[in-house]
Amino acid sequence: MKNFIAVNDVPDINALVKKALVYKSDPFKDKALGANKRIGLLFLNPSLRTRLSTQVATCNLGMDAIVFNMDKEGWKLEFEDGAIMSGSSVEHIKDAAPVLGAYFDILCIRTFPLLLNKEEDYSELLINQLIKYAGIPIVSLESSTLHPLQSFTDIITISEVFNEKRKPKVVLTWAPHIKPLPQCVANSFSQWINAWGNADFVITHPHNYGLDEKFTKGASIEYNQLKALQDADFVYVKNWSSYTNYGKILSEDSNWMLTQAHLNATNNAKVMHCLPVRRNVELSDEVLDSANSIVSLQAANRVWAAQAVLSEILTNTN
Amino acid sequence: MKNFIAVNDVPDINALVKKALVYKSDPFKDKALGANKRIGLLFLNPSLRTRLSTQVATCNLGMDAIVFNMDKEGWKLEFEDGAIMSGSSVEHIKDAAPVLGAYFDILCIRTFPLLLNKEEDYSELLINQLIKYAGIPIVSLESSTLHPLQSFTDIITISEVFNEKRKPKVVLTWAPHIKPLPQCVANSFSQWINAWGNADFVITHPHNYGLDEKFTKGASIEYNQLKALQDADFVYVKNWSSYTNYGKILSEDSNWMLTQAHLNATNNAKVMHCLPVRRNVELSDEVLDSANSIVSLQAANRVWAAQAVLSEILTNTN
Amino acid sequence: MKNFIAVNDVPDINALVKKALVYKSDPFKDKALGANKRIGLLFLNPSLRTRLSTQVATCNLGMDAIVFNMDKEGWKLEFEDGAIMSGSSVEHIKDAAPVLGAYFDILCIRTFPLLLNKEEDYSELLINQLIKYAGIPIVSLESSTLHPLQSFTDIITISEVFNEKRKPKVVLTWAPHIKPLPQCVANSFSQWINAWGNADFVITHPHNYGLDEKFTKGASIEYNQLKALQDADFVYVKNWSSYTNYGKILSEDSNWMLTQAHLNATNNAKVMHCLPVRRNVELSDEVLDSANSIVSLQAANRVWAAQAVLSEILTNTN
Repeated sequence: MKNFIAVNDVPDINALVKKALVYKSDPFKDKALGANKRIGLLFLNPSLRTRLSTQVATCNLGMDAIVFNMDKEGWKLEFEDGAIMSGSSVEHIKDAAPVLGAYFDILCIRTFPLLLNKEEDYSELLINQLIKYAGIPIVSLESSTLHPLQSFTDIITISEVFNEKRKPKVVLTWAPHIKPLPQCVANSFSQWINAWGNADFVITHPHNYGLDEKFTKGASIEYNQLKALQDADFVYVKNWSSYTNYGKILSEDSNWMLTQAHLNATNNAKVMHCLPVRRNVELSDEVLDSANSIVSLQAANRVWAAQAVLSEILTNTN
Repeated sequence: MKNFIAVNDVPDINALVKKALVYKSDPFKDKALGANKRIGLLFLNPSLRTRLSTQVATCNLGMDAIVFNMDKEGWKLEFEDGAIMSGSSVEHIKDAAPVLGAYFDILCIRTFPLLLNKEEDYSELLINQLIKYAGIPIVSLESSTLHPLQSFTDIITISEVFNEKRKPKVVLTWAPHIKPLPQCVANSFSQWINAWGNADFVITHPHNYGLDEKFTKGASIEYNQLKALQDADFVYVKNWSSYTNYGKILSEDSNWMLTQAHLNATNNAKVMHCLPVRRNVELSDEVLDSANSIVSLQAANRVWAAQAVLSEILTNTN
Repeated sequence: MKNFIAVNDVPDINALVKKALVYKSDPFKDKALGANKRIGLLFLNPSLRTRLSTQVATCNLGMDAIVFNMDKEGWKLEFEDGAIMSGSSVEHIKDAAPVLGAYFDILCIRTFPLLLNKEEDYSELLINQLIKYAGIPIVSLESSTLHPLQSFTDIITISEVFNEKRKPKVVLTWAPHIKPLPQCVANSFSQWINAWGNADFVITHPHNYGLDEKFTKGASIEYNQLKALQDADFVYVKNWSSYTNYGKILSEDSNWMLTQAHLNATNNAKVMHCLPVRRNVELSDEVLDSANSIVSLQAANRVWAAQAVLSEILTNTN
C-alpha cells in the first residue's frame, strides 16, 4: 500500500482489520517502526476525531507528527494548471507539494468539497495533484468525495461487534440536517461495504438523494425507510446533500430522523454515526443514549484504523 | 488526585508545593513517568503561559501532548441536555467527551465564561459535563470561575520567596481594566490562600466589586486600598468585573492602579500578577520594572505547578 | 553564535554551509544534541516552509518544539516603552519575553513589517526587544527587514549546485507582484551574498526600486534587466515593494516577469525563488517547470539550514 485514498488502495481488507485489532490490544508493539519518520498532517478544513486519532496513532508508532492548518496558518493554494496567479491564491500545488514531499515521509490531508460544482468536486483535483507532485505516500483524512479512514473504522467496528456466522444486514439511512453536507461518508461507506462483501447492504434515502452508482453498485436501494430497516443488524445514520441536484437540500422531513420507533423495526440493531452528530435532528437522544449506540466505539476505533494504515505504509516504504 | 479543578482536589497543598519545587531543581527526574501517556490540551480560548507551561511540563514528564484549539480547528460544542441541535453548535459534549476520553490519558481544558449569565457561568457546566462524560482525569487550564494552576503557582511562589517564621500578609487588590474580565483568578487565589491557611489574607476592592463568599470566606475585606496595603508582604494585583452586577465594569477609578505611592505603604511588598498585564492601567511601569515585581518568577513557576499536578495524576492512575 | 538574526551573527559562512551539507547526508547524526532542550516557534504571521522545515530540523536534533501562533492562539503584543495600554494590545513584550525565555532554550520568531513606516520597520523593534528581554538565543524566522534562514539556504544551494572553479555570476532580479511585499528576502540575499564574497553579484530592478545600501553595498546595480542577466549562472527572482517610496507598488510592468526569453540571455542559469511564487506573474510556468528551476531544491534545503543554525546555537549554549 502506497497511498490510502480509496478502498482499492487496500489489497486485503480483512487482513488490515486484523492488523488494526492487534494494535487495539497492544498499541505500542511497533513503537520503533516510525523512528525518525516524519508525518505531515495538513488541514484545509476543521477536524476533531480524524485529527486527534491520527496524531495518537503516530505517537503509538513513534513517528514525529507535524500538524499544519493550511487554511489558518498558511494561505490559499492554486490547483488549476496554467493559472495566472493574480488573484487570491498564493501558492500553486505544483510548488507546494514537492516541498512537503521533501519534508515528510508520509503526508496526510483533509479537504472538503465546495459543493458548488459536481464535476470539479468529483474530479478530486486536490488530492490527485498532491499525489502527482508530492512524490511520497498520501493518506486521505477525508477528501471531496470519500472518507476512507472512517469507512475502514466502520468495518473494524462491525467486525468487532458482530460475532455470528451469517452476514449481518447493514443499512445506511439518510437523515435530515440543517446544512448541505458532502456525500463523502455515504459514498465511502458504500464503497467499502461493497468491496468487503461480508454484509447484506441496503441503502435507504428519499427520492432524489441517490448517490453516485460508482460507489453504491452492489447495494440494494430502498426508498421506504421502515422497510429497509426491517431486521437490520447495523444502522448507519448519515445526512448528505443531493448528488443529482448537486449540493442541495431537497428534504427536511423529520420522519427520517432515527428514533426508537425506527429501531423497533430492526433486529435490535447497533446504531452507527461518524460524528459529529446533530442530536434530535439526525438521531434522537433516546437512541444515542441507549445501549444500541456504538458511536463512541466507532470514534475510539479511529486510532487503530489510522495506526494500521500508517504502519502498512511505513512497512512498504522502509 | 483524579481531577484538578479546584483547591479541594488537592489533599495536601504543602506536599504538592514541595513536589513542584523538587521538579524546579530537577526537571527531568520523572521523564519516564509519562512514557506512552497522551495528554490532550483543549483550548476554547486564547492562552499563552498556561498553554506553553503545560506543554513544557508534559515534555519534562515524557508525555505526548496534543494541542487542539476547539474554537479554531474544530467547532462549537453544545452543553445543554436534550438540545435540539438545529442551531450553530455542531457537536454535543456528551458525544465529544467520550471520544476525547478514549484518545487521551489526561485531558486539560481552557474555557472562559461569557459573563452574560452568572448562574450559568457559576454552574461550571462545561467542565462538569466533561468530567461526567470523558471518563478520564480532567485538569482545568482555567474555567468559568476558577484558575487553579495559577493559584497553585502563586502559593509556590509565595512559599519560595517568603522565608520568615511568621505568616506573610497577602493583599489581593482590585485594579482598573478597560475590558470586563472574569472573576476566576481572584476567586481562585482567594480559595487557595484560604485553604492554605499560611497567610494573613486581605482583599481590597471598590464597593460593588465583592466576590462570591464561597471563595472569599475567611479573608478580611477592606474597601480602603491604602489601609489594606499597610504592612503587606505580598500584593496581588488583579482586575475583575463585578460579581453582584454580573460582568459589568462599575469603576474605572485610576487611583486603584498600583503605583510606587501605593507600594510605599507596604512592607516593601513583592508585587504579583498572573499576566498578561495592562501596563499603566492596572500597574505602573515603575512598579513592574522594579525589584519588587515577581511577575516573571510567577510565570516561570507555572511549569513546575503543571508538572507537579500532572505527575500526581499520572502516579495515581498508573 | 548566540542569536541568528543577520549575516554578521555567523563567524564563518562556509563552515556553516559545510555543516548543513553534512546534515543533509546524515540527518540524525546529532539526535542526542537536543535532548531535553525546548524550542519555541512563535508566529505572528503565516508561514509554510519556514515553519515546517524548522520543525523537521528540531526533530532531527531531538529537541521538543512547541509552536505558538501568537496572532491566532494568543493576543496582540505591545512594543513601545512606556505605553499606556488602554488600547488593543494585551501584553507588553517586556512581560512576555522573560516568560518565553523561562520556558524555552531557544526562541524562534516570525514577524512581518507593516510597510507603513520605514523607520519603524527598519528599527527591527520587535526582534530587538525580544533579544533584550528574553535572555535566551533568538532565531529569526523572518523579521521586518531580513530573512536569514532563507539567505543561508540560498548560499547552501548555490554552493551545492555550482561546481566550477570560477565565481558564479548571481543576479537578483525584481519581478512584478499584485501585492506590496517586504524587502526582506532581497535585503537579506544581498547582505549574505556580499558577505560571502564568492559570487559576482548584480542586482537589477526598475528605477525607484533601489534597496537600502546598507545591504546592497558591494553589488553592481543595473537597471537594464536583459543586460544584467547576460551570462548569469544563477537568477534569483523576487518581488519587493519600493524602499524609497516606502511600501508602494511603483511598477506592474510584466516585462519584468522572468520568462524563457529572459533565460536565453543567461549562461543556462539556474533559477531561484524563495517561494511562494505567483506563477505567470513573477515567473512563467515554462521557467518554473523547466530543468533550470531549482526552487524545490532551495525549499528542501531549508531543513539543513535550520538544522545547522540550531545545532550551532545548542553547541555554544550547552
